[in-house]
Order: sequence, then C-alpha cells, then structure tokens
Amino acid sequence: MTSSVQPTAYHADFSTRHIGVSSSDILEMLNSLGLSSMQELLDEVIPTEIKRQSKMHLSEGMSEAEILEDLAVLAAQNKPYISLIGMGYYGTYMPAVIKRNVFENPAWYTAYTPYQPEISQGRLEAILNFQTMVMELTAMEIANASLLDEATAAAEAMQMAHRLHKGGRNIFRVDADTHPQTLAVLRTRAEPLGIEIDVAPSGQAYTQESFAALISYPSSTGQIRDIETEISDMKAAGNIAIVISDLLALTLLKPPGECGADIVCGSAQRFGVPLGFGGPHAAFFATRTAYQRMLPGRLVGVSKDSAGRIGYRLALQTREQHIRREKATSNICTAQVLLAVIAGFYSVWHGPEGLKHIALHAHQMACLFARSMQKAGYKIRHADFFDTVVIEAPEKAEELVFRAAEQGINLRKLDNGFSLSFDETTQPRIVEKLLSLYDVTPVSPADSIADKFCRKSAFMQQHIFSRYHTETEMMRYMRALADRDLALDRCMIPLGSCTMKLNAAAEMIPVSWPAFTDIHPFSPADQTQGYLTMIARLEKQLQECTGYAAISLQPNSGAQGEFAGLLAIRRYHQSNGQAHRNICLIPESAHGTNPASAHMAGMNVVVVKCDAGGNIDLSDLKAKLEKYGPEVAASMLTYPSTHGVFEEGITQVCQLVHQAGGQVYVDGANFNALVGHSAPPEFGADVSHLNLHKTFCIPHGGGGPGIGPIGVAAHLKPFLPESPLNGANAVSAAPFGSAGILPITYAYIKMMGRSGLIDATAIAILSANYIATRLHPYFPVLYAGRLGRVAHECIIDIRPLTEKSGISNEDIAKRLIDFGFHAPTMSFPVPGTLMIEPTESESLAEINRFCDAMIWIAGEIEKVISGVWPQQDNPLVCAPHTVQEMLSEEWSRAYSRTEAIPQQAMLQPNKYWPPVNRIDNAFGDRHLICACPPLELWDFAAE
Amino acid sequence: MTSSVQPTAYHADFSTRHIGVSSSDILEMLNSLGLSSMQELLDEVIPTEIKRQSKMHLSEGMSEAEILEDLAVLAAQNKPYISLIGMGYYGTYMPAVIKRNVFENPAWYTAYTPYQPEISQGRLEAILNFQTMVMELTAMEIANASLLDEATAAAEAMQMAHRLHKGGRNIFRVDADTHPQTLAVLRTRAEPLGIEIDVAPSGQAYTQESFAALISYPSSTGQIRDIETEISDMKAAGNIAIVISDLLALTLLKPPGECGADIVCGSAQRFGVPLGFGGPHAAFFATRTAYQRMLPGRLVGVSKDSAGRIGYRLALQTREQHIRREKATSNICTAQVLLAVIAGFYSVWHGPEGLKHIALHAHQMACLFARSMQKAGYKIRHADFFDTVVIEAPEKAEELVFRAAEQGINLRKLDNGFSLSFDETTQPRIVEKLLSLYDVTPVSPADSIADKFCRKSAFMQQHIFSRYHTETEMMRYMRALADRDLALDRCMIPLGSCTMKLNAAAEMIPVSWPAFTDIHPFSPADQTQGYLTMIARLEKQLQECTGYAAISLQPNSGAQGEFAGLLAIRRYHQSNGQAHRNICLIPESAHGTNPASAHMAGMNVVVVKCDAGGNIDLSDLKAKLEKYGPEVAASMLTYPSTHGVFEEGITQVCQLVHQAGGQVYVDGANFNALVGHSAPPEFGADVSHLNLHKTFCIPHGGGGPGIGPIGVAAHLKPFLPESPLNGANAVSAAPFGSAGILPITYAYIKMMGRSGLIDATAIAILSANYIATRLHPYFPVLYAGRLGRVAHECIIDIRPLTEKSGISNEDIAKRLIDFGFHAPTMSFPVPGTLMIEPTESESLAEINRFCDAMIWIAGEIEKVISGVWPQQDNPLVCAPHTVQEMLSEEWSRAYSRTEAIPQQAMLQPNKYWPPVNRIDNAFGDRHLICACPPLELWDFAAE
Repeated sequence: MTSSVQPTAYHADFSTRHIGVSSSDILEMLNSLGLSSMQELLDEVIPTEIKRQSKMHLSEGMSEAEILEDLAVLAAQNKPYISLIGMGYYGTYMPAVIKRNVFENPAWYTAYTPYQPEISQGRLEAILNFQTMVMELTAMEIANASLLDEATAAAEAMQMAHRLHKGGRNIFRVDADTHPQTLAVLRTRAEPLGIEIDVAPSGQAYTQESFAALISYPSSTGQIRDIETEISDMKAAGNIAIVISDLLALTLLKPPGECGADIVCGSAQRFGVPLGFGGPHAAFFATRTAYQRMLPGRLVGVSKDSAGRIGYRLALQTREQHIRREKATSNICTAQVLLAVIAGFYSVWHGPEGLKHIALHAHQMACLFARSMQKAGYKIRHADFFDTVVIEAPEKAEELVFRAAEQGINLRKLDNGFSLSFDETTQPRIVEKLLSLYDVTPVSPADSIADKFCRKSAFMQQHIFSRYHTETEMMRYMRALADRDLALDRCMIPLGSCTMKLNAAAEMIPVSWPAFTDIHPFSPADQTQGYLTMIARLEKQLQECTGYAAISLQPNSGAQGEFAGLLAIRRYHQSNGQAHRNICLIPESAHGTNPASAHMAGMNVVVVKCDAGGNIDLSDLKAKLEKYGPEVAASMLTYPSTHGVFEEGITQVCQLVHQAGGQVYVDGANFNALVGHSAPPEFGADVSHLNLHKTFCIPHGGGGPGIGPIGVAAHLKPFLPESPLNGANAVSAAPFGSAGILPITYAYIKMMGRSGLIDATAIAILSANYIATRLHPYFPVLYAGRLGRVAHECIIDIRPLTEKSGISNEDIAKRLIDFGFHAPTMSFPVPGTLMIEPTESESLAEINRFCDAMIWIAGEIEKVISGVWPQQDNPLVCAPHTVQEMLSEEWSRAYSRTEAIPQQAMLQPNKYWPPVNRIDNAFGDRHLICACPPLELWDFAAE
Repeated sequence: MTSSVQPTAYHADFSTRHIGVSSSDILEMLNSLGLSSMQELLDEVIPTEIKRQSKMHLSEGMSEAEILEDLAVLAAQNKPYISLIGMGYYGTYMPAVIKRNVFENPAWYTAYTPYQPEISQGRLEAILNFQTMVMELTAMEIANASLLDEATAAAEAMQMAHRLHKGGRNIFRVDADTHPQTLAVLRTRAEPLGIEIDVAPSGQAYTQESFAALISYPSSTGQIRDIETEISDMKAAGNIAIVISDLLALTLLKPPGECGADIVCGSAQRFGVPLGFGGPHAAFFATRTAYQRMLPGRLVGVSKDSAGRIGYRLALQTREQHIRREKATSNICTAQVLLAVIAGFYSVWHGPEGLKHIALHAHQMACLFARSMQKAGYKIRHADFFDTVVIEAPEKAEELVFRAAEQGINLRKLDNGFSLSFDETTQPRIVEKLLSLYDVTPVSPADSIADKFCRKSAFMQQHIFSRYHTETEMMRYMRALADRDLALDRCMIPLGSCTMKLNAAAEMIPVSWPAFTDIHPFSPADQTQGYLTMIARLEKQLQECTGYAAISLQPNSGAQGEFAGLLAIRRYHQSNGQAHRNICLIPESAHGTNPASAHMAGMNVVVVKCDAGGNIDLSDLKAKLEKYGPEVAASMLTYPSTHGVFEEGITQVCQLVHQAGGQVYVDGANFNALVGHSAPPEFGADVSHLNLHKTFCIPHGGGGPGIGPIGVAAHLKPFLPESPLNGANAVSAAPFGSAGILPITYAYIKMMGRSGLIDATAIAILSANYIATRLHPYFPVLYAGRLGRVAHECIIDIRPLTEKSGISNEDIAKRLIDFGFHAPTMSFPVPGTLMIEPTESESLAEINRFCDAMIWIAGEIEKVISGVWPQQDNPLVCAPHTVQEMLSEEWSRAYSRTEAIPQQAMLQPNKYWPPVNRIDNAFGDRHLICACPPLELWDFAAE
C-alpha cells in the first residue's frame, strides 16, 4: 500500500471531461497522420509568424464543485430585489414545466439553427408558435422568429422603414417617451446611415420631413394614448408607422395592427423569460404581408415534404445576409431562439385566457396603487395606463424611491416623480407594503383604461393555444417536439465554422439560479456586485485569451460584435480627422454578416479576391489598397480563414492595411483554432469579435442566444460601447448585453484553465486533420496550408462527384440524417462543398462513426456513377427516409429496404427517424404561411 | 373595458394543471356514463357508510411560485454545515452531467419498475451497471438491484442467514463497532422473528451458538482489521459471515469476497447521491451464487429476446413476495432504483481509476489529520483506517467538537473522544482549518493502511467503466438509455394499483437545492429546523388527509410501512398483555407484501376468501374469526379493494375484527380513491400506510425511491417508530427515512389544497369509470360495486378471449407497446386479467388514445378467433415489433407490414420503437448472468 498512496490532487480535471479524446486516442490519431507528437502537428499547422509570443495569464483549471462554489459566492453578492423599474424588463414566472424541460434540457439548448429542417421540426414548430402568438397579439400579418432586444428591433425597424420609404427623407421621428436605452441604440445605429433622429413629444404634429415615426404604446412611462388617430396623421404625412409595444398589454389594448401600424416590435421577455441582468430575451418584430421580403431576421414558414406531408422550415432565406451579402442591410443572424421558444411555450401554456388573466393582474395592481395614491393626494401623470404608474412628486420623489429601496423594492426615478411597473409576480402584499410605507390607505381600485383603448377582438384562437394546459400534456408535448430534433445530446454536429462543442452541465447550472436570473439590468450597482465582479473577471480572462487591451461584453450576437467593432474603427477615424475613410475591404470568402455589418457602420464594401488556395489574393489586395488607399477604413478578415486554413501571409496583410491607414478587423468566428496558440493583436489585428456561442461554450439554443463581445487594441478602447443609459456607442439595450448567460463562459474558462484551453485548441486541430485524412481518399479536401494540413475544420469538395453522379452536397447532407448525423455546413464558403468541424469535444468513436458513414455514402455515390442505381432513384436523392415510408407495404424503389437503411445506419445509439421527408423549400416560399397552419391544411396533407 | 376588469386572484390554480381533464371533458365523460354530475357519480361509487364525516382541514392551493418561495424559506432554516460525522453518510459530488440528465430528468424519474422489460432496456442496463460495480468492488458473485438503506440491508442479511442456516440457532452476533442505527434496526427486526442479538466487541471468539455474525469493515469508528482470519473463525464455528462495508473503501481494501464473506451489504450513498437528511440512498447487497435464490430484492439479469438479441430483464422473480406470497420472508418491493442508477452512473463516469483517486483523497485527508494530531500528542484509536479517524480525548472531546461546530463543521462525538470521516468533498483547507483551530501544525501524512489489508486485485475492468469518461459521451449514453424506455414523460402508464400520476416540476425542483441535499441525518437539530418544520407540517397534512391521530414518516417504502404498522399492532397487544395474538387475517386478493410483512412482524398468516364479486367473503371471515378469535392480532385489507371496488361491507368487517380483539390494518395502496372523500379511521381502521409514490406524487424512479409513512389511531401512537439513535421500533436507518424527497409531497398537498385534492380523487374515479364503460363491450370489466361502478381502477377480464383465441393478457400488454403504451398491471390480483388505472392526471385525449388502441386490439383478437390469422402468427403474439424486423427485406408473416404497425399505432406523438422483441424470461433464469455481459455474449447475439 505504501507505494500506492500518492498525494492526490483535490479536484478531478474538468478539461479531460470537456475534451473528447483520451491520450491513447491522440496517439492513434497522430499515427494516422504520420506524426508522432502534438507539437509536430501544431508546427505543421500554425505558421511560425503567428505563434503566440506572450504568455496567457490564466490560472489552472477548477473542478465542477469549485466553480459552482465560486459562482455561488458571486451570486450571493447580487441582491435580487423586487423590481418595479419596468423600462421593458418585468418580473415573470417561467412555468416550472418549461424551466425543467426546455430551459434546463440539453435537447433544446444544444440544438443548432434549424437550417436543416428535416431534423428541426420540433423547434420549428415551437418557433412557429411564437410567431403566431406575436401576430395574434399585435394583429399584424407576419412576424419573424425573434430579434435580439427591443432596442435593436427598433433599429431594424428604422432601417427597414428607411429602405422602404424611397422618398429621400432622412429624418426618423421618435416618441420622446420611449425607453431611453432604445433611443440610445437608435442614435448609435442612425448616425452611420446618415439618419437624423428627431425626438418629439406626444402631440407634436407629423410632417413630411420624416420617413417614419416610432411611437411607444404603452409609452415608457406607461401612457396609453390614441395611436389610431396618430398613425393616421403619420401616414397622411407619408411616414411609415412603427409601434413599439408590449405583448402582455396587447391582451387588453386595441392592437397596433388594428390601428394601422406598419411595423410593430418590442420585447417578449415578460413571457416567462428571466430578467438575467438584461438578457438574453427575445424581441419580436411584425409587419404587413406587403413588406415581408424586407423583414429582418429569420422566419419560420410552413411547406411540404417530398411525400406531401406538412413540414416547417426557414422561409424567404434569400432575404438574409448570408445570401444577399453586400446587398444586405441587416446583419441579424443569431437571434434569441431559445428565448422565443420559451415565450412561445409560455403562451401555449397560458393560452389567451391565461395571458389576459396575468395582464389583468398587473393592471389591477397598478390601479390599486394609483388610486390609493391619488386618494391620498398624489397626482398620477397618465389617466390611462396598463401596468405602469407615474406619481408626480417633484419634491419627494427621491425620498420615496429611497424608502422603497430600503425595503428591497426598486422603483424608477423620473424627473418630477417616479414610476412603478407591476407584473405577473407582483403580490398584493407588496403593493400594500409600499402604500403603508407612504402612509397611504389602500382603496378599491377602478380600472384605468378607457373603453376606446380596449381590445375587442379575439386572439390566439388556434388550437395550439388551448390544447396543452395541463402539465402532463405540456411535458409530453415538449418532449415530443424535442424528440423530433437532433441536437448535441444525441450526435456530433460537425458544422464547419459553427464550433458545436460541449455545453457542460456545470456551466449551465448557475444560469438558473435566482440570484442571476432575477436581476433587473438597471438595478443600482450596490445590488449587482456579483455580476459586476464576474463581468470584470471575464473581461480580464478574454483579454488574456485574445491578447487585446480591452473587451466589451455588450454586443449580444456575433453580428452585433462586428458592428460594434467597425463602429469603433469609424469613431477612431473620425477622432483622427479621417472621417472620410469609408471603404471596408472584405475577402470574397467572408461570412455574410461581414459586408452587412460594414454597411451598417456606414462603410462601402470592396471585395478582395481569394487565390486558388483559398487565401487572400495578395496582389488583388495590393491593387485595392492602391486604388482606395486614403479612403480605406478597414479590412475585415477571418482567421484561420473561412476556408479552414491558417494563411501564411496574414502578418503581411495586416501590415499592408495599416500602411494604407486602415484598421484590421479579424472576425473571431474561428477563434477556436487560436486560443492559447495565437493572439490576433500580435500579428496585427486591431479589433475582433468573439462568438461566445462558438469558442466559449454558450449553447446555440437552436439559433440563439449568442454573445459577440469585442476585443480591441488600446487605441480603440475609447470607442467601445458604453451603457445605453449614460454613455456613447451603445449597441444593445442592456449595458452588458446578455449578461444572464455570461456565467457559462466564465465557468468554462475557469474550469479549463490555461492548459486546458491550450489543449482544447490543439485537439480541435488534431480532430479536423484526422477527419481530413480519413475522408480525403473519398472526398478531396479542398484547401490546406503549406504543409497540407487544415486548421480546425476542413472543406471537402463534392463537385467532382456531383458532376459524375448528379448527387449533390445537399443529398449527402440529407443522407447523413439517415445515419443519425446533423449535416456539415453546406456550400459555405464554397458552393458545392461541405465544411466539417468536429471541435475538441467529440470522441474518436463518434468521429469514426461519422467518417464511416461518409465513406459508406461515398460507396453509394459510386453505385450511382456505375449505374447500379438511377440518378433519380437512389438512397441519396430520396434521403432522408422516414419510418412511415419504410413500413409501406409496397416497395418499388431501385434500391432495397436494407439499402435504404443499411446496418451501418443502425449503429447509432438509437436510430433517429426524421418526422418528414425532404422539405420543399421553394414550395413554402411560393405559398407563404408563417403561423400555425389551419386545420384544413393538415387535412389536405393527410389525404 | 370596465366590465372586463375583474378582481383577479394572484395565482394560477395548480390543481387544474395537475388534473388532466377540463370541465368540458368532465361533462363529456359523465355523459358517456349516463350521468349529469360528479356528485351523482360519487354517490354511486362511494358507499354512504364510508363517506367522510369530518372536514379535511387544509388550506386552499398555492401557486408554483408560492410553494417555491415557501420551500425556500424553509430551506433557509437548514444549515448545510460541512459534515465529518460519517456513520454511513458522507459528502459526495453528484457529477453535474448526471444531476442534469438523470436526477432532474423526468425520462428517468417518472419511469416505473421495469417489469415490462421491452420498454425498460435503458434503465435495466443502468441497474446492471450498478450490480456489476457492486460485484466488482465487493468481489462477490451476485448483487441485487438495491435495497433501502444499510440498516435494512443488514436486517435482510440477518433474515437470509437465519433462513439459510437451518441449524436451529437463534443468536445473531453483531460487531459492537457497527453503526448504531444499523444495530437499532436489527433489534427491531430481530425481535418478532425470535432472533436474539448478541453485540460483541472485536476479538471475542466465535461460538456455535450463533447462526451468523456480522462484522463492519471498516468499522463504524473506522477501524480496519483482519476480517479474513475472523471470517475463517466464524465459519469454523458454523456461522454465516456477513460483512457491512463501504464501496469506496473497497477500491483500496482487500474485498470481503476475497476474505470468505457470504453476504456483503452497505450503502452506495457516497457514489454521487446527496445526503438529503438521511435518504433516499441505495443500499447494496451481494452474496454467493450458491445463495442467489435466497437473495432479497430485485435482480436484473441478462436474457435474450425472440430474435435472439441480448436483452435485460428482472431475474428470478419467483423469489419475490408478489409470487411467493405467504412463503416470502422478505417484503422488499420498492427499492431505491433511481439512486442505484445514479450510483451506477457515478461509477461509469469515474471508472476504477477515478474511484480509487477519490478514495485516496479521502484517505489522504484522514492521514493528514491523524498524523498531525498524533504529532501534537493526541492518541489515535485505530492504527489502520481508511477515511475515519478517532481521536482519543476523554477530557477535551466535547470542547473540540463544539469548537468545530462553531466553524460550521460537524464531527461525531464518541465516548472518550470524537471521530472525523473525510470524503470526496473534503478540501485540504478544511483539514488545515480544523488543525489550526486545535493549534496543531500540519505534518506530511504517511498512509495508514497496512499492506496486508490492501487490495491487490483489479476491479471494474468491464468496457462500460472506461467507455464514458468525457461529458459529451456520458450525456449521450444517458440520453440513449433514456430513449430506450417509456416513462410518464411520453405516455400514460395505466398500471392498476400503481397510481402513475404527474410528478410536477415545481414539486421536484426543491429536491435539488443544496439546503435540502447537503444535510447529514444526524446533524444537530439547530441546523435542521427547515426540515423539522416541513416534516411537522407534512405530518399534520397527512393526518388531515387520512383522519389518523398520528403519522410516522420513517418507513422508506410501502412494505416498510406495512411492517411498521403491524409492529405497532404487535407492540400494542404486548402492552395489553395480549402478546399471544399472532394471527393476521389477509384476503386472498391482497398485495404480496401483506403476508410477507405479517411474517416479518412475527405473525402467522391466515387467508380469508373473496366472493365472486371480489369482496371479502364475510362468512369466511366470520369463520376464521371464530376459529382464531383470541389469537387474532390483526386483519389486513386494502380499501378500495385490490379489485378496484369500494366494498360495501367494510364497516362491518372492521367491527367484526374489533369484536374479536384484533386490529384493522388498511393498506393504503389505493388511497388515491379516498383522499378527501373517506377517512379510514372513520370506518374502523386502526392503522394504514400510505404510498407517497402513488397517491402523493413521489415519482417512481424506475422502481424507487418510495416512501411508506404510516398513520395510526391514538391508541397506537406510542408504538410508532422512533429515531434509530435514541428510540424504539426504528424501521429505517434515518430518523425520517427518505427525508430528502419529502418536499415533493409537501409541495403537492400545499399546491393542490383542500379542494384540489378532493377534485383529484373524484376525477381519478371518473376516468376509471369512463375507461371501464368504453372498454366493457370489448373486454368485460370483472368487478364493480353495487351500482355497477368501479373505483379508481378497473380489471378487465381477458380469460374468455384467451380461451377462444389463445391470445393472453401478456400478448395484449406487449401489443400495447407497439401503440406507445406501457401495459396495465398484468394478472394482479386475478390471473389472466389486466388492471387499468388512469389517475386524475391523464387527459381525455390520452385516455381515448388508450381506449382506441385497446379496441383496435380487440379487433385483432377477433381476427385470430375468426381464423384470419393463425394463433401462432399474428401481430399480438409477435408483439412488440422492433424497427429492425419491420425493415427486413423479406416479409413472410401471416399479417402484413401495415397490419404489424397500423396507422392507429402511428398516432403516438413520435412512434416509440422498443429496442428488443419479446424477452424470454425463462431463458435468462436458466442461464443466469447478472453483470454487464462479456463481449463474447454480444458477439454471439449479433451473429
């Protein structure tokens, strides 16, 4: 025994749990690459010139137990006071059945954006519920699948109206009683586009100078006014009518759609989504059918599959920036899908009657407070209100707000008074406590919404909103939807550029803690010390990871980060008297968000070519710099490149751009290949955004939330986004964006520690090279570095096979579903290819299962080429196969049942069966339906 | 608007979420019964004489938010100090991936006992992992699928040894250094069986007077001694050798199996299962192959399905009390399956190296403390120890223990000293803090296990224990297993007598809170006020629900409750000088646990017949009372009867028993039909147990945990179980049994409130009668009350159809799997029948889906009767169908593919496919394998 008792470290090593391969796997994989050490591989892959010089100052990894304790200490420093602050953020209850089965369920939160509709029918239906609910409550004709927050939704509305108007007007009129953070973001977004914001009080006449006007209904301070007349005036003046609204209020108020609004947007937070110190929450955005092709963001629509069955999929994708690229005017990409799903389920759970019940409760509390105060002699600012009451008290406001805070209740201080916003969670005893604190006797409330403002129309009459009102039914409904989908909890999702890695349970657990969920973004700093400390530490951690001098966590998506980074560059040039610099050089292989973000930052995009190796064409770059020299604001590039390669000439590229006076923006989408091994500022980058939902373990949530913090070199630090309430350049509604999920990244970095992060990068590179090597004989790897290695992902070229067989990369993607895999990235950045990224979290067993499936498929393609199977009747073009068709009595395909689902396909732990055959995208776009389908349609499909 | 603003209650009504049918559904269902009101139905169903007279004093229902707040307040009154108390309860970390994906996942916790193996392959595999781990660590040949706690496991070992010995000896020798609670339960269990407990210090010679001896290894105070020699001495004296051990210690210590032990048992708590103030935790029990047919409790074994595939199922069921009935000597039924599953996953996650690492850590901490104290002049009691150190300090012990408690650290006070047990969670800084508190300088530790005690043999070399060591793989493994099973989160589980109702998320959430999980059962009362308050309230609630004068929550299963209740009767008679009363009258339809429990309570069972209507045969009862009068101790009966009927004569039955001087025990298995409508003491019952896992929403967990509190009339109150540390009649190791899950029942009663509970009972009765009425034309309902109504369940008779068609009730049960249903209860209480219980939580839609499936199946049976399909080749006898067979190229059955899986079967939300065909139970019992199958076996099956 003596010999076996060794001093033993207290904690187990988390990084070996996060990383999918063991040390013996590593040897096997290196061996297959003809290498004998990781160092040898890294030396071949990462160019010497970009190797990190500085040390990454991070501590070594913590265990699960340690991080949970560390975060519990931070959580205890937050004070979850009762918030009556309002301003677009309200108390709400996430129903326990939704919390447990969706919010805390990896089947929901580890799913990817539903670009592959056949394996996404569950979440597509859930999002369609959300869209339908928004359409019903706003009384608008079409609603999207969510935006990032109310403020950016309003900015999207402004941009869309600007585009729609075509009248040459550049003034955007905004209701003065709009949430201040919304106004701040509108200002940030308007300036680069040359739009002038005209803040006007209610009642001021509309003129023909503005292209659009935005009104808040109810207003920020709770006023309900006659928007019908106002919209009519607005339109008479040629203004597009935008309404910011509150979905809960619209259960009681005449909806904007019935008042003539062209666009209605706002936040769906109070539909069951926690405050989370500002986010993530889903914003909604609805408009008229006539404008549907201008709608920003993703949209779920109904279509049919190849068997004529109803199926859902993303609709009108040609609107989106990954297709429109330079022509795009919105860069919205990642949205807040998981939160939209939750808001949708919340409305399914409560139904129209339940929502109205909740709204009436909030209203009742407001009335109780208002009438009692009134009786005691206080003046109430607005005669008609829903949930928010303004007490006029010029002298006493400060003191009354302070006294409430002493009792653990936060109010909103206003000029000459204060306001209180009541909600689902407000208990009568809280109102009574406040009244008693103010020595006011409660009186029976009368209501405070004039009849003319009241909603008369029915809403949410679709079956879905009355079907699942008991917990057993709701639980099974959500499970059934989850089971229709493939997420990371069942299989590898080898999406190139998307970095679908493990979202560890210990990272996710703290996100549910009330001390993190129940904090209003505008709570006083003495109540949010836990958050502020964690955020400060996380900024420092990300500085170490990237090498940048400063970090902003405010951008709540990667695209927002791009915009914020380019804006910093814009402001920097302006501060140097170089405001004329407005050209942004972007390689043709860039992500679609890059050019869209550049446009939003007021830049014109000039495309730089790539050479045959997929690298930036240096001569073209030089030519463009030559041509646009003094006008060049920035060059955006992705590193490693979107072709999955560490380009050799990157340092030179940066030097050239700097010489021309431009700034270098390095897109951090591929930062998973750099952490610990390369620091962008060291090779010349000035700014980058990071995708915390790629490299840093925020789960994808079926298409969001994401977080896109930016890192900048010291000279750009003054131009980072500041708080929307008291600073410049705000890009998000909340000071720290989606703060509620930052514990995930914080925990990941703390648990991995310095060595763990370095190892993760190395293994991600190893696994990609292993796959490239295994697949290359069957599907040629399109790009590689100087020594034939790829970075953390690889592009395989399907075009030669397509030419010979007619089998497309899409056919392969769909065939992979039969083998229980989500497809790799299709046709990005090169049409006709597949881009594969395994990440460091996948096991060698799963990687081999994937390679085996791909090699099997290669054999199937050979059978088409050799004529064994016709081009139009083979398991590839007919994929995916549903169990329904496999059960059919007759079988008249050119291939057999066992060829349809070979033994190989049964090797998945439990055979996944898609609920639909291949979805017809074009059909859905031709017959656009973006709400829960009416029953007739189902009957039709069933026939 | 004015009219629509109505005062609105603050909370949504939980009871309408729990109850599955809406008010319009109720009208539809009543209508189908030819009734117009619920009252009418209840009047027809519940005999007037048993209608509750007293009011049930419970408050009205709380909302989810309110109960979570209420429990948070209670939780805050618990103080989760660091516990070094030991005594069989240790700190441990439940890995986050297991916590999130198993402990908090309804797919795992809402599953039923795996009596239907085809829909239980996932949990059967998980339990097999547990059994394998136990066999490996103890080095024994066979291990069961868990028992309730170490103390009852030791009692089972005592009983088994007593049965095995056959030598007429009645002395059971117990190591004096055994955990006191284990000793207490052994005393309780020994007395009625006429066994004398001889507590002997280590070193005392073994004699031929005892039939068996139990040694603790390590001992309660941590000593490791030479058990090999001791067992050899023991056996030489003709004693059966029982060892209580600690699985973690056995990673370092020579295992009892290698030292000659016959039975090894103990607790698996420290394998990832929280303390929970005493439970639930899984106990393990292992023995030699030679004794396997005497093994108490459930046992998972390997068998094959009809296609020759490997499949798991419960083995050797003929040992169990539901088959052996009067001959059974153990009443163990519900076990701790969910906790065994967790302990099994914990061992899969850590593997042999990880477990050893954890063990070494605990040992290291113990050594650090012991050596440092020794150096400072303290005496250490035991030279060889694993994790527990005793400091001899006769004068100072009290003070030193007190000073630790002041620092939030609990130690165990002993005579002349105190002990500390270190564990996985002990951080070095805690040891250093203690040493510093005692002014002791830390010294480098040497180890403290002599080489002769060290384990030399390898363990857990099976592939399963090295395959899933990364989180991604582990998460997917657990999901794949869950997906193989059917649980309440996917479909109705209409098991008669089992009351598979909703386990609401809000009830489950608090069970994960550290303030409930991290409390040692023997923590001082000032640290457990939250628990104690909740328990006191829950006792009061259950008094109101039952009408009894007092409640004990200690019994941690229904069978334990039966034993505790009968024991109270036994003690009552003893106290009245009626110790000779030892006859227990039990109707022939009783649950199998009834006679087994009676035996354990030292009673002889006399069976009372039932009449043709399924009721107790009054004349037979009278005859038996006549015959045994002065010897009658008790009569056990179930109400409503196990036939699912409210018997009319129950009051008279009770009177007759009382007249004979006996006590009436009413089994509470069917209490779901009584709550709020009938109170057993009012019609004559003296004692009942309740199954909290039936009526009161503790989830079944795949076969446990359950809780079986007993209620007693005032005269029996003095005979309730007291704390095992300082009272009489203890039946469980912990004072309040499985206290950690009591918040579930507490929350359920609080949220339902008085009216909600009354409604739930009524709806359970309505739904059962609706099903009976719908199915009666196809499958005759066997028993009904006077007015033709059933209670909360119904038995349908399959025997007439079996006679005509050869199709058995089992064929129907298996065929239901194809339709996505768990089978009803088979052949209990009447062979050849099915017993159906929908509970109040099922929706009308799901109930109709079930009835439709049954009616469809009736049609299929007709086709067999009419000769369309042969008796040996039809969809019923071939059920369930796997997707593998459905995909086969050739189809040569007498029925078509579409008849195999008709459209009707596809109506389930997502078609459930069992992973195996029908399991061959007999084959598995003939070729008994109860550990993870070796790879050869899989190869064999694959061929």
